[in-house]
Amino acid sequence: MSETTHHEMWERLNLDLEAHDGLLEVLGKFYGDIYLSQDNRLKGMEYLDFVLSEVHGLRIKELQEAKEAGRKVIGTFCVFVPEEITLAADAIHVGLCAGAEAGSDLAEQLVPRNTCALIKSFIGFKMAKLCPYIESTDMIVGETTCDGKKKAYEAFNEIAPTYVMEVPQTKTESARALWRSEVVRYIKALEDLTGVTITAEKLAEGIRITNAKRKALQRLTALRAASPAPISGRDSLLINQISFYDDPVRFTAKINELCDELQERIGQGKGVAPADTPRLLLSGCPMAVPNWKLPFVVESSGAVIVGEESCIGTRNSRDLVDESANTLEGMIDAIADRYMKIDCACFTPNNERLENVTALAKSLKADGVIHYSLLFCQPYSHESLKVDKALQNAGIPMLSIETDYSMEDVAQLKTRVEAFVETLG
Amino acid sequence: MSETTHHEMWERLNLDLEAHDGLLEVLGKFYGDIYLSQDNRLKGMEYLDFVLSEVHGLRIKELQEAKEAGRKVIGTFCVFVPEEITLAADAIHVGLCAGAEAGSDLAEQLVPRNTCALIKSFIGFKMAKLCPYIESTDMIVGETTCDGKKKAYEAFNEIAPTYVMEVPQTKTESARALWRSEVVRYIKALEDLTGVTITAEKLAEGIRITNAKRKALQRLTALRAASPAPISGRDSLLINQISFYDDPVRFTAKINELCDELQERIGQGKGVAPADTPRLLLSGCPMAVPNWKLPFVVESSGAVIVGEESCIGTRNSRDLVDESANTLEGMIDAIADRYMKIDCACFTPNNERLENVTALAKSLKADGVIHYSLLFCQPYSHESLKVDKALQNAGIPMLSIETDYSMEDVAQLKTRVEAFVETLG
Repeated sequence: MSETTHHEMWERLNLDLEAHDGLLEVLGKFYGDIYLSQDNRLKGMEYLDFVLSEVHGLRIKELQEAKEAGRKVIGTFCVFVPEEITLAADAIHVGLCAGAEAGSDLAEQLVPRNTCALIKSFIGFKMAKLCPYIESTDMIVGETTCDGKKKAYEAFNEIAPTYVMEVPQTKTESARALWRSEVVRYIKALEDLTGVTITAEKLAEGIRITNAKRKALQRLTALRAASPAPISGRDSLLINQISFYDDPVRFTAKINELCDELQERIGQGKGVAPADTPRLLLSGCPMAVPNWKLPFVVESSGAVIVGEESCIGTRNSRDLVDESANTLEGMIDAIADRYMKIDCACFTPNNERLENVTALAKSLKADGVIHYSLLFCQPYSHESLKVDKALQNAGIPMLSIETDYSMEDVAQLKTRVEAFVETLG
Repeated sequence: MSETTHHEMWERLNLDLEAHDGLLEVLGKFYGDIYLSQDNRLKGMEYLDFVLSEVHGLRIKELQEAKEAGRKVIGTFCVFVPEEITLAADAIHVGLCAGAEAGSDLAEQLVPRNTCALIKSFIGFKMAKLCPYIESTDMIVGETTCDGKKKAYEAFNEIAPTYVMEVPQTKTESARALWRSEVVRYIKALEDLTGVTITAEKLAEGIRITNAKRKALQRLTALRAASPAPISGRDSLLINQISFYDDPVRFTAKINELCDELQERIGQGKGVAPADTPRLLLSGCPMAVPNWKLPFVVESSGAVIVGEESCIGTRNSRDLVDESANTLEGMIDAIADRYMKIDCACFTPNNERLENVTALAKSLKADGVIHYSLLFCQPYSHESLKVDKALQNAGIPMLSIETDYSMEDVAQLKTRVEAFVETLG
């Protein structure tokens, strides 16, 4: 990551320059060890390497230039915030920093210790002045998906004003009506912020761009069913992670190019690991940049990851917004319906997820599933027990991992993962 | 508790007789130590002692007799389930067992270890066949107030079919509409279960009975502002606990009698502790029978408890349903509105609670507040930080306690509470 060329910009954004330089140095080394050391990488990954290397640099510069040109930047923590609408308001939709331990000690001033690492991380990044994204946002959008985030946003709101969308907890007609009203409220909030009127034409374009991004990611998912695995799980996770940061049109074009390359490679019978390498699906909590710990552990334990059933994975790309509506109201309905299909563990019941995990594992020819819960994430910890049963019934072995962002348990995780992989041989 | 006279009934209810006898024996001893050992108790507490001693006996017999006469029994875990409606359907509304460690090891087969003691307890009581209430219910009603319960009901549903009400997470108009629709759905579910049509007349009677119970409890709360404290916190907690189990009309009459006695005592300047005893308000998570650990620790540390700001306390009794409506629709609105006033930590934001805790502490002339969170209860753990700030601003000291149902930390809790009480002297 470019430590020096962007100092002036970071200073204007009021980052803690010294701590931020330290962070980039650690991340650069981490990235080198975990990513650049891989064999048989796709040429198309050069784009991802570059975007990642400039994720706090050139991309932030782009945001700043867009802001100077009058556009607004919306920062989010969750796949429930409809990007279609953000784009329809000519605004930019980005994820915020949440995947590293930076500042977590500070975060404990605002939230209980027994809070998951992801939440402590986004609060910590803000408090420690390490996230140029949050410093570039005109509006931060939270949601009520879990108790941890719902309550954390109250404290976070005091240091970073946060607009909160209510995500319902069931999929009844009344719950869908509540969610639709939240979609409408978000449209109004964005119109107020940007001064842009969201017309049917603009929203149709936002839907088209976001659907195209999802289709590219769906294409990637489908290609990973090939054997030998044509791309590593680490690289695929990075693609999903970058989907939250880069410009959606550029990203979509680049991922489609990468998929062309993947198709060619598959045609040649080439892969990143021998065809008899155990294939694993990761399922559960999102892994935000730079939370690459578990994928690295798995892929250095003799297995290859063939899918990510998480919000930074198929949960974000599986469902498209129906593009058949012509009116604004019809499009709002289509958006509400699409988001209500998300099989987040915040819903009760959430049997769709059990079906989706099982179907995904089968379609990707996974030999087993690793369920990943962040420590203190109650919704996914509860569901890990149910996913285990569903997979057992389908004859697919599962290993349940509960961890945080610390590196202390890496050796222990490796022992457990290796033992699991051995049983699949 | 009567260990022998009800054996036949417990056997019919398929309880684990040996384990249940053991439980009653431990509870009887515990009750003797914590309750019967108190000085200057009110004569009116004899009723509570009796009800508690027969809480698994005569009260269950009453439920069985009512069932034989065609009435249905509804079991609940939360103050969001509208008792007015249960009564309007000629059904009986009871709380379920959730205040002891019994069966918690079994519960960990269904829910993660990092689940709060209350949730593990209700699952454990069912799995260990120790709760005659749940075995007497015709319908168990859960709700989506926290991630822990919301997800636990899914697993619980497999061993004890559970109807779940969706409680919204904000207090917007759309959220209120969702909640109102859930109230209507509950009415329909009860009508289907009981065969009773809930008319305006029946619902008005249900509202009247439930309001009368709340008024008696409000009267108790108000009388506790007197100095010296006229009743112990343990006894008041017991009254609030019993309010979930006994017949509401009988309970209301008995508590009003007890309040008459309290008034007399206050008139004579009598109390349960000297006037200069530090007065504490407990605030936070509910304490279900027989979770008397913290009140006992507090009141054996030189302080007296003058209020319980919890669901088994003022959160359940503070707000009445407006009785001015004459139509069924109007009454449903009044019920929806009353329940939306509950300042549960499940709401975001929940600033009402900060105001309510502060006002209650002042009105009860509390010298300090002990905030009580169950370990792994995320909503109340988060709010403890906010309550602390609000009370600091009001010049009221607060001690934050996080614990579970284990007795292992009693000595440590006592040390912390004694140190806190000393600072109030």
